[in-house]
Amino acid sequence: MRTDVEVSMSNRHAHLTAELVEALFGEGYELHEMRKVGVREFASQETITAYGPKGKVADIRVMGPPRSYCQIELLMGDTYKLGIEAVLCDSGHVDNAADLVLEGPAGKVAVPHCGIVARRHLHLGQVVADQYEVKVGDIVSVRVGGERGVIFNNVIVRSGRSDRCKFHIDVEEGNAAGLRGVTRGEIVSIDERS
Amino acid sequence: MRTDVEVSMSNRHAHLTAELVEALFGEGYELHEMRKVGVREFASQETITAYGPKGKVADIRVMGPPRSYCQIELLMGDTYKLGIEAVLCDSGHVDNAADLVLEGPAGKVAVPHCGIVARRHLHLGQVVADQYEVKVGDIVSVRVGGERGVIFNNVIVRSGRSDRCKFHIDVEEGNAAGLRGVTRGEIVSIDERS
Repeated sequence: MRTDVEVSMSNRHAHLTAELVEALFGEGYELHEMRKVGVREFASQETITAYGPKGKVADIRVMGPPRSYCQIELLMGDTYKLGIEAVLCDSGHVDNAADLVLEGPAGKVAVPHCGIVARRHLHLGQVVADQYEVKVGDIVSVRVGGERGVIFNNVIVRSGRSDRCKFHIDVEEGNAAGLRGVTRGEIVSIDERS
Repeated sequence: MRTDVEVSMSNRHAHLTAELVEALFGEGYELHEMRKVGVREFASQETITAYGPKGKVADIRVMGPPRSYCQIELLMGDTYKLGIEAVLCDSGHVDNAADLVLEGPAGKVAVPHCGIVARRHLHLGQVVADQYEVKVGDIVSVRVGGERGVIFNNVIVRSGRSDRCKFHIDVEEGNAAGLRGVTRGEIVSIDERS
């Protein structure tokens, strides 16, 4: 079984609530779209700085539009600089996330339970979903080739909106596999079926 | 076949020649040992900054004692900041390495062919080498477990001075696998035999 996937790499970024956008950038402030990353979602021109007990990480790209919860997706290396625990989380599950202080041009706000390291995951291609042996909820392994070839184990499969399977990793994972730009991988095994 | 290995993670660091130590730190300068990392080798208290066509990377730890050649071992993420090609090299093979400008407190020097991304490799445990099926020159795959479990393919086997097998990766590779501190892995397959 070989299923081709598109690899999508994320750098550190911030999902803020509408209230936090105002607190960090000013009353009535609206984010300025820089680049589309989905149907509605975009990378904004705005960045923030996060502070932890040990240090800070600057230039964290703010994503838009605002969400109902705050989630700062960090690289594992960032968590060492900040002095916080590297909590591996699925997006939206921030109960165990680290407390951070966030800073924008208009202010500094302490935000509990917002700092996470995103768990790698694969969005199943929707249109062709029934062609795949892989199902939502499965744990699979994905191989990404090249000189720095890596097999990523423990990849959770989620539903997706795109036609194709999209494998989401962060830039440390991408760099570990020597990836640059748009690349492809393949599902090499289903390790666990839910 | 399962062979247990110790994982050793390196951050960006610089091996300088004695001449470069003097050019960057001053005439007659000697590096100050901060931490032993081998029988003779040590991490020094000194750091340098590297400049590429696009940007700079600061706080690159200088290793001692000086070597007969200059080799700046970078993270793949650093090569983007610097604007240089990410040349994956074995230590000491710097013919295709990137040109950099190095800066220390006493000066700035253009150094051709010095910037590399180190190729992951495994040093075979010497004392017990004959117990292993794995031989120097083999290409193997190494699994590192945990929540962010990864199998690193394309790992070249080299000779080693330690009793145990030591698997050398950089911090981006370690972070991709969720590693912190001393960890262990296992050789899961011999992919190619030289």
